[in-house]
Amino acid sequence: MPQIKKKILIIGAGFGGLQVIKSLANKSSFEITVVDKKNHHLFQPLLYQVATAVLSPADIAIPSRSITTKYKNVKILLGDVTEVDFKNRKVKFQNNSESYDYLILATGARTSYFGNNSWKEKTLGLKNLKDALAIRRRILLSFEQAELIGNYEKAKSFMHYVIIGGGPTGVELAGSIAELSHNIIRKDFRNIDSGMTKVTLIEAGPRLLTAFSEKSSKFTKEKLENRGVEVLTNSPVLDITDTGVVLKDRTIESKTVIWAAGVEGSELAKNLPVNKDKANRIIVDEYCRTSEYPEVFVIGDAANYSTGLTRPLPGVSPVAMQQGRYVAKVIESTEKKKMISPFHYFDKGNMATIGRTDAVAEFGKIRLKGIFGWLGWLFVHLVYQVGFKNKVSTLLSWVWSYLTFRAGSRLIQEEMDELSIRS
Amino acid sequence: MPQIKKKILIIGAGFGGLQVIKSLANKSSFEITVVDKKNHHLFQPLLYQVATAVLSPADIAIPSRSITTKYKNVKILLGDVTEVDFKNRKVKFQNNSESYDYLILATGARTSYFGNNSWKEKTLGLKNLKDALAIRRRILLSFEQAELIGNYEKAKSFMHYVIIGGGPTGVELAGSIAELSHNIIRKDFRNIDSGMTKVTLIEAGPRLLTAFSEKSSKFTKEKLENRGVEVLTNSPVLDITDTGVVLKDRTIESKTVIWAAGVEGSELAKNLPVNKDKANRIIVDEYCRTSEYPEVFVIGDAANYSTGLTRPLPGVSPVAMQQGRYVAKVIESTEKKKMISPFHYFDKGNMATIGRTDAVAEFGKIRLKGIFGWLGWLFVHLVYQVGFKNKVSTLLSWVWSYLTFRAGSRLIQEEMDELSIRS
Repeated sequence: MPQIKKKILIIGAGFGGLQVIKSLANKSSFEITVVDKKNHHLFQPLLYQVATAVLSPADIAIPSRSITTKYKNVKILLGDVTEVDFKNRKVKFQNNSESYDYLILATGARTSYFGNNSWKEKTLGLKNLKDALAIRRRILLSFEQAELIGNYEKAKSFMHYVIIGGGPTGVELAGSIAELSHNIIRKDFRNIDSGMTKVTLIEAGPRLLTAFSEKSSKFTKEKLENRGVEVLTNSPVLDITDTGVVLKDRTIESKTVIWAAGVEGSELAKNLPVNKDKANRIIVDEYCRTSEYPEVFVIGDAANYSTGLTRPLPGVSPVAMQQGRYVAKVIESTEKKKMISPFHYFDKGNMATIGRTDAVAEFGKIRLKGIFGWLGWLFVHLVYQVGFKNKVSTLLSWVWSYLTFRAGSRLIQEEMDELSIRS
Repeated sequence: MPQIKKKILIIGAGFGGLQVIKSLANKSSFEITVVDKKNHHLFQPLLYQVATAVLSPADIAIPSRSITTKYKNVKILLGDVTEVDFKNRKVKFQNNSESYDYLILATGARTSYFGNNSWKEKTLGLKNLKDALAIRRRILLSFEQAELIGNYEKAKSFMHYVIIGGGPTGVELAGSIAELSHNIIRKDFRNIDSGMTKVTLIEAGPRLLTAFSEKSSKFTKEKLENRGVEVLTNSPVLDITDTGVVLKDRTIESKTVIWAAGVEGSELAKNLPVNKDKANRIIVDEYCRTSEYPEVFVIGDAANYSTGLTRPLPGVSPVAMQQGRYVAKVIESTEKKKMISPFHYFDKGNMATIGRTDAVAEFGKIRLKGIFGWLGWLFVHLVYQVGFKNKVSTLLSWVWSYLTFRAGSRLIQEEMDELSIRS
């Protein structure tokens, strides 16, 4: 009698989805289908380095197919899932549909503007490769425009970058743009001094990196200021216009405003008829399941897991990865009619890079900063790498690019007859 | 008395333009301005490898600014020159203008459809990074669409690639697409066998690679056929429609038609009031000057140099590079009121790659083929590299990517909610 295989359907091949795949790969009782709207797994923690022209897309993204080549029971389909029919256990995308026995929603997060949707048009977000390439293009074009104008007074709004949001992404972007403009490309211009570029990091709350200790926040602020970044805390944004950012005590003129202030659940999650929090994250129980459908799991940034906690688990890759592996176990246990204990998050700590050879890292009681924080950052990135066939060679390539300022990352892929420089 | 510096204006930082820059860099009597519509120098001979997902943009392009960092008398401006005022010695781009004492037009070539402009919409050309990324995206999406359809009969127009034009670019694209589909990605799909992909190379004339010997043409055709490419010679294209390519004896259904059949002078060259040939290349005299304005030079693919020759010099990088160095000498000689002999092209031969470890190369009487041709190709690419700071490291990175099928080059940068798969 042929075994009846259970159909596992995973939406999204990010950190969480990939762990489910890996845990159930080549197990003959499961047939796994992955539907993703990207053709690649993205190493999100380094996305800011593509945005700031330090790394290239190929350094931080790998086609999902190349990760699953050897997993014979894993099928990947490129699609944007727009509908889930929970009753009939089916999802729909383009003109296709796929049925499931177990569904794992690992759709991640997207940029949130907290209801100020007009701000979306006036700022650049950073959630995927296209976003990162858009920021890179805008930054590189701003310097080009300033060089064309050739006069600092007239060009200064092109040489002022504003980043809104003092979390890790905001800190990393600010540090990295300061490094690019004040050091890396400084000798490349003749009419302007890119060293005069202003970088402003705006945080509504009282301090940067609220997930870190106050000591680390203070260290980060000082280090950023040493690197020429203006840090404004207690500065909620009142409005964003075509010319810049309005704060309560001033208006900053800037042609390049990057929004790193918040995320929310994906478009799909938003539209599903299940329990969600205000940020459109789907609320899950202690087994990472929706309360409505026990065969439907939600993991990573798409989920709000708060059972027994004072606040939901943060949207970081270790949560997604641990939940991915856990959900695979829940499914196997369910199939074997075994009990399993609730999900428990093992907190590996927090890290943020301030600039080359400078970072803050907190692992439980261990706090690293400066060069040691940066080495800790490097080490953890090495350990966390998912799906890259050769971890060491990938890491070496990152370190090489990072330390040598590999110029190839500073490409504008389009030509001027297809681009318009903002005036 | 301060020295009066001569203003050299170069339009285009390709193989030719870059040689003028390098030859006159840091010479105190010249002030050099480069206007280019790209922010990078492109290693065009490897563009087909980006189009076929073997290399990434950063592997074959380098920001022009990073090449000229140390040349204090060289200023780069990003702009699309639309007008040349020969009388007042000025060029115009966007809202800017630049004057010159000597002008070098090194604007390269663009894809030509020989008057069939509707074909432009129905095919993909290959002249710049954006073109290469568009071909890569289309090829990768075709396989994704075929996998979604899941049935060879229904999906076969997505799995049939047609390349029009049997010159080096056409041969290289055909060989490379065959390799990608028949080998590299074959184990990545579950519903389809990418090994069943058809690749058809169409040439209007009697043989491939007309610039090579008949023997090399024959060898190339055989090798391509061994690699599963259908080669159709004596097959002029009668029409290109939304569904495929019409030949005199058949119609080939294909969703992906690549046009590699011809080039012509740039948009700028086309509009200039100087002597041109039918392909909008500017006709130059034996000193690479326009006949109308002795202070205006045209080099590389933009020029038609035929003095004393039976046919114009070909549009290949050695011609552009030699002309670039020569023009720098003409300018220096003119300034010193010295005589200079006419331009003489030293023919370094022809090369084309058929596939991994397989190429044809002809250097004068020396003919290499197969693995030796491929090694010759590698060697010459190493020697010809322009502007890449570390030739050996760049070459190693190419060879590494080329031999290990680095998956990072197979990215679709966009997500499905922004893309439409052709149906």
